[in-house]
Amino acid sequence: MAQKRVLIVGGGAIGLAIGWRLARAGCAAALFDRGRVGHSASWASAGMLSPLSEVQFEEEDLLHLGLKGLAVYPEFVSELEADTGCCVGYRRDGVLLVGITQDDLEYLKFRYRYQRDLGLSVAYLSGDEAREREPHLSAQVSAAVWCPGDHQVDNRHLVRALRKGLVAAGGEVFEEMGVDELLIDGTRVRGVRVGEEVFEGDTVVLASGCWSRLIPGLPDCARPPVRPVRGQIMRLAMTEDFALNTMVWYSRVATSTVAYLVPKDNGHLVLGATSEEMGFDEDVTAGGMFELLRAAWEVVPGVYDLPVVESLAGLRPGSRDDAPILGETPIEGLIMATGHYRKGILLTPLTALSIAEVILERRTPALIQPFGIDRFGL
Amino acid sequence: MAQKRVLIVGGGAIGLAIGWRLARAGCAAALFDRGRVGHSASWASAGMLSPLSEVQFEEEDLLHLGLKGLAVYPEFVSELEADTGCCVGYRRDGVLLVGITQDDLEYLKFRYRYQRDLGLSVAYLSGDEAREREPHLSAQVSAAVWCPGDHQVDNRHLVRALRKGLVAAGGEVFEEMGVDELLIDGTRVRGVRVGEEVFEGDTVVLASGCWSRLIPGLPDCARPPVRPVRGQIMRLAMTEDFALNTMVWYSRVATSTVAYLVPKDNGHLVLGATSEEMGFDEDVTAGGMFELLRAAWEVVPGVYDLPVVESLAGLRPGSRDDAPILGETPIEGLIMATGHYRKGILLTPLTALSIAEVILERRTPALIQPFGIDRFGL
Repeated sequence: MAQKRVLIVGGGAIGLAIGWRLARAGCAAALFDRGRVGHSASWASAGMLSPLSEVQFEEEDLLHLGLKGLAVYPEFVSELEADTGCCVGYRRDGVLLVGITQDDLEYLKFRYRYQRDLGLSVAYLSGDEAREREPHLSAQVSAAVWCPGDHQVDNRHLVRALRKGLVAAGGEVFEEMGVDELLIDGTRVRGVRVGEEVFEGDTVVLASGCWSRLIPGLPDCARPPVRPVRGQIMRLAMTEDFALNTMVWYSRVATSTVAYLVPKDNGHLVLGATSEEMGFDEDVTAGGMFELLRAAWEVVPGVYDLPVVESLAGLRPGSRDDAPILGETPIEGLIMATGHYRKGILLTPLTALSIAEVILERRTPALIQPFGIDRFGL
Repeated sequence: MAQKRVLIVGGGAIGLAIGWRLARAGCAAALFDRGRVGHSASWASAGMLSPLSEVQFEEEDLLHLGLKGLAVYPEFVSELEADTGCCVGYRRDGVLLVGITQDDLEYLKFRYRYQRDLGLSVAYLSGDEAREREPHLSAQVSAAVWCPGDHQVDNRHLVRALRKGLVAAGGEVFEEMGVDELLIDGTRVRGVRVGEEVFEGDTVVLASGCWSRLIPGLPDCARPPVRPVRGQIMRLAMTEDFALNTMVWYSRVATSTVAYLVPKDNGHLVLGATSEEMGFDEDVTAGGMFELLRAAWEVVPGVYDLPVVESLAGLRPGSRDDAPILGETPIEGLIMATGHYRKGILLTPLTALSIAEVILERRTPALIQPFGIDRFGL
């Protein structure tokens, strides 16, 4: 059997993971990124793997995708770490959803009942019970929902390891080489053009996040309805006498602010994230930082004295219904792996395994069937 | 007459300005800095020249020094710009001291009466009158004191121009060459040692800001009582539809926060500054940024959407009585020019002119006589 040649457009966690799975399965995988691999939305993520705490009303398909995404994580990580010798910082911390005001508490209770009705393993805690679990919580925190099944990974270690795995398995990474045109013959993909150079392939995977609909040559029927949703984050440096045990998630109802605090093995504390419809603007703003700092300080006052290491913004790829866009398209050989919105890191293993199955076995797993581009009726 | 050889320890605005004045007067001036010239406290300053708005109770000597410091600025700037061809962004914006709460207003009135009793040209404005002057002020601002006599300079342009002027006049700049020892023969200064190398000089000027007391070889009688007072600042990028006309100064009484907003010619808006006794810690912290952003947003809500360009901390040199330490010492040839605390940029010209007079004319101007190191009885 001739070696399958797969071109991957976009070098975030999703594209890298697909490339790694295909390369280790014997494909000739080549990945193109217009910038630095792994340095867009994947870099700005906090690496939360939190389908339980993030569950949204009326999104049960997406919840099940997320739960399955989390379920396949440990084995995926084991294989990746074995392939590469890298540690990607997979941790089973659990998330505390916390609230302060009466409005926050009403919201927490509402969420808790919804989570419980879905059969998720969560517990409602008093403020004191929450502080037993995480002593750095403010005395103002009056209740919490404990989601022990939510985990995390170091998103930056993850993209580094995926890249290493891809290259070690014989894949190629073309960095700072944006795809200038998708080449299609009739209804079949033929390859991509980068500058004057043409790369031919049997399969092209579109994994360019919020930029996915902008690749020249994409026909309307295969142009994914994705848009950028800006997320600003900050990284603080934890000190020896200050280190969180759990992830903390705070919905500040009064201002519709969502903020989470995610401690990392390297001593960083990630504060995330705004959610802003600002087009392709990647600025970090005064207001974004202000909201993050205020929310973090309210629930974990000890952050006040921590040094600020970094602040940056990433652009999440939100689709029209906020769910990912996965699998085949009307163009033969053109595969979608985009629109992961807030769940890109969580769904990286599941997406990679599923898309590899689509490409290698010509079979679309049932789990991703609801997430095809056909649902938009383009 | 043999050429006088002057060694200057410290390359902030003060040291550079002294070097420039001495070099253009014919001295052989050599300046040493342990880091990048102009990149410590001078870089983190907002460049406010605001003796009126910053006047503190019971500091009338210092007020007169500041007023004189401002009075000599225009001619100093003219000479520097003529010498170097640089523009240092001298602007006569004026400062609006603003308040929101009843406590803020009581404080504003108290300050206003004190300023008026001192004969300063200031005006008490209603919130609406203040907004006529600066339409970007929040509707929450309920009163203001207008200080039209306060000016500003671009502190970064200033240090660049001073360095250029110093070098153009034949002076030498030794960057990233910290002085390892002050060399003294009996009661007379002989020079400095940097690594293995000895530089001899008739005069040594100590202008190392908060590091001034740490130079090895300094005898107790000439060790200035200075300490670092951390100031965190941020720089935002103003947009076309958002540009402040005036400087805004806000004393947020409820939290003892002082914040000011200073628009620069390059489109930056400087937000300053915390005032923290944290030793030599130069971290930018979550709490520091939070306080600046909250205060700025309260009085000028339009800052919310502005991109954050930079955040950094500088260490002001505060002396035991918060006034500068200027002039001769018990060690012949050893001259102090340190301890300028919040007024380093304001007092740069006056300090340079006065210290040049001390060195060239062997005469201590009356204005700086109250600020000698002898006042501490070391």
